[in-house]
Amino acid sequence: MTSPRQMHLNLFIQGIGHHEAAWRHPATDPYNMLDIGYYQRLAQQAERAKLDSVFIADALAINPNIEFGPFNNFFEPFTMLAAVAAVTERIGVIGTASTTYGEPYEVARKVASLDLVSKGRAGWNIVTSANQDAAFNFGRETHLEHTKRYERADEFLEAVTALWDSWEPDALIADRNAGRFVDRSKIHAVNHHSPQFSVRGPIDIPRSMQGQPVRVQAGSSEEGREFAAKFAEAIYTAQNNLADAQEFYSDVKTRMQQYGRQPHQVAILPGLAPIVGRTKDEAIDRQRELNEHIIPEYSLHQLSQSWNTDLFQYDLDGPVPPLPPRETLNGGKSRAEVFAALAEREQLTIRQLIDRIAFARGHGTFAGTPTEIADHMEMWFTSGACDGFNLLMPLLPDDFTTFIDLVLPELQRRGLFRTDYSGTTLRSHLGLDEPINRFGN
Amino acid sequence: MTSPRQMHLNLFIQGIGHHEAAWRHPATDPYNMLDIGYYQRLAQQAERAKLDSVFIADALAINPNIEFGPFNNFFEPFTMLAAVAAVTERIGVIGTASTTYGEPYEVARKVASLDLVSKGRAGWNIVTSANQDAAFNFGRETHLEHTKRYERADEFLEAVTALWDSWEPDALIADRNAGRFVDRSKIHAVNHHSPQFSVRGPIDIPRSMQGQPVRVQAGSSEEGREFAAKFAEAIYTAQNNLADAQEFYSDVKTRMQQYGRQPHQVAILPGLAPIVGRTKDEAIDRQRELNEHIIPEYSLHQLSQSWNTDLFQYDLDGPVPPLPPRETLNGGKSRAEVFAALAEREQLTIRQLIDRIAFARGHGTFAGTPTEIADHMEMWFTSGACDGFNLLMPLLPDDFTTFIDLVLPELQRRGLFRTDYSGTTLRSHLGLDEPINRFGN
Repeated sequence: MTSPRQMHLNLFIQGIGHHEAAWRHPATDPYNMLDIGYYQRLAQQAERAKLDSVFIADALAINPNIEFGPFNNFFEPFTMLAAVAAVTERIGVIGTASTTYGEPYEVARKVASLDLVSKGRAGWNIVTSANQDAAFNFGRETHLEHTKRYERADEFLEAVTALWDSWEPDALIADRNAGRFVDRSKIHAVNHHSPQFSVRGPIDIPRSMQGQPVRVQAGSSEEGREFAAKFAEAIYTAQNNLADAQEFYSDVKTRMQQYGRQPHQVAILPGLAPIVGRTKDEAIDRQRELNEHIIPEYSLHQLSQSWNTDLFQYDLDGPVPPLPPRETLNGGKSRAEVFAALAEREQLTIRQLIDRIAFARGHGTFAGTPTEIADHMEMWFTSGACDGFNLLMPLLPDDFTTFIDLVLPELQRRGLFRTDYSGTTLRSHLGLDEPINRFGN
Repeated sequence: MTSPRQMHLNLFIQGIGHHEAAWRHPATDPYNMLDIGYYQRLAQQAERAKLDSVFIADALAINPNIEFGPFNNFFEPFTMLAAVAAVTERIGVIGTASTTYGEPYEVARKVASLDLVSKGRAGWNIVTSANQDAAFNFGRETHLEHTKRYERADEFLEAVTALWDSWEPDALIADRNAGRFVDRSKIHAVNHHSPQFSVRGPIDIPRSMQGQPVRVQAGSSEEGREFAAKFAEAIYTAQNNLADAQEFYSDVKTRMQQYGRQPHQVAILPGLAPIVGRTKDEAIDRQRELNEHIIPEYSLHQLSQSWNTDLFQYDLDGPVPPLPPRETLNGGKSRAEVFAALAEREQLTIRQLIDRIAFARGHGTFAGTPTEIADHMEMWFTSGACDGFNLLMPLLPDDFTTFIDLVLPELQRRGLFRTDYSGTTLRSHLGLDEPINRFGN
């Protein structure tokens, strides 16, 4: 490839914005969360801006803290994204599904179906479910332990990717005269047998127009990195400083070698919450203004879950207590460590930590002018920290509109972001090859 | 209600038509099965015609007989219907999901999400999965036995409907000044505990705009009828003669009483495959012409599954062998009995039975002029056999277009079918009340 390397940009759509108090801000409308049209318009806006994809997170339980604010969307991701795909033509649509609670056949199928609905634009964000409450909705007495979740995820992925290969590309022939609808020799049982799953296959959906849906992942623990190195084609990692981001980037791309994979076969996209101002001071003011809407109970509930400790007992203006030993945590371990490292590095009080993570829950935040934000993104992109960004807008849709109007043109002027799509599939946007069919000749 | 009783009409969308050889007919395009736009256009056409709903069947395994023709669609129903809902405004969208292989929380959620996408137009066709092959895709060594499937379905429905009630209608308040996103006292754990399920809840989606999604069902065995009497709000039953249809109608409406339900709380919609001609002879000719495309291997495979017997050993032009004892069957028991009764009543050979069920797999078929078809429908509707019909068009979209152009206006002239929608939800089309929230005051 002689074309210049360009960033990949994903819009992470979470309700009416990623700032934890976005719903209290007069610039948002909380009832948009019930309106599929709102989500469709955001995706159409992202498509006009030529972003790679939109992405929807998920949990399989209500946020225990919902009294003080929303967390995820009100829609199941794949039904929502099918409605989004119906009104867009080029942008990728990436939904979250858990390997801890689903069945491989069911998940393979709903992702493949979205891929068919979108004509090759679907991605699956693979999670092992950090939310312990999900267990109680799925008949389990306890949440599956962290390492076990990754063992299950590994088997789950082997089964799902085998199902996605179970139809060769030219299996559907519809030969009317011969009376043969498919070439049965090109549709294969997968006969997956692992400790936790037994799946015969084949799947009941022909092969994707992009070969297979794109596999996305976000966990950044030791197990998460190994899983990513083996399976991920895009990674939404939470990195809030350059050195950690570079270490993560280099580590995952190196680990891929042992699985016979090339570095370009994954796009590493740290989260970024850009806060735009005409001047640096205006951006900082805006950051403070948004934080005035924070409800400390909300933040303390969320942090207490991460710490697996009741933080309401501590002084809000006192130091952040140390994170309990890693083995006692069973939610998003890596994220808790990101919070603790941030507090330690900058010697934050609990209140200050709350303010720092209110925008993006440990993902990078950057307040500045459009030029400064573009500089920041360019620096990360050219210094081995990322292949692009997962954009977490504080308030939606306003902050996304501002980003598109002011920051994106600057990135395009610098040749760092596309001015049009060159293909029609999510794989083509991400520069990923179509996977070779394991059963093909 | 003083308004005259009118029929409910549902378009059952199955690939490119219900005739088993539809894909071989020059009037269809088999590749439409890969095109979401084709399904969207059919639903838009049904909406212009003011039908109550469109409906998508499902199986959780490939048709073992796919070499000779498609059976179900290539899409997972709820992702497909979300894309259909995105381009329609009034018509109901009804998808199939199994109670034998899913989890109540997952199914409750995807149906509720479609209901939110469609703003109150979703229905769930509840199946216990007649297809034994599904077991092998979900880690089971054998298909769950018929009675056990219904026990599980009963528990499943109790859990799902409790989840759908877990938010009271006014739980979402988004009170910015007070900093309260929801009234937490109006969101309830369901704490469902039954032999097979344990579901804490609440669900993570606010209450439906139609109260709850509509529950649809099709099984017509003893267990199926009892389940329908308890839970169903619409029934797609297979009845190919008036006496059986009347018996079924009266039986289910009577059984409802023991569950404290009124007869109008279910719409019974037998399947009907109309074959339209300008004259009766033309309709009969068309019926024969379509059957010329039948592939006997396909039909014999399908019938062998029903009979749980290898029918390839029998003479095609000899009598249909007796159905094995009911307890040895474990697929769609009622449907097999419908086939056997038809063969017995009319003394059919195997080839004749194949010809008779090629259009609609045991559902009613009727060939005639538009007036004769309207007469037939009116007679069933006014003689206690049904509340409307589940329309199985032989070839799609052509036969549906013909039906809309020629039969529907005749029904409307007679006052038997609406000329416009009076409401915006599927419940309003079907004349169903909004369920009372069990947690409400």
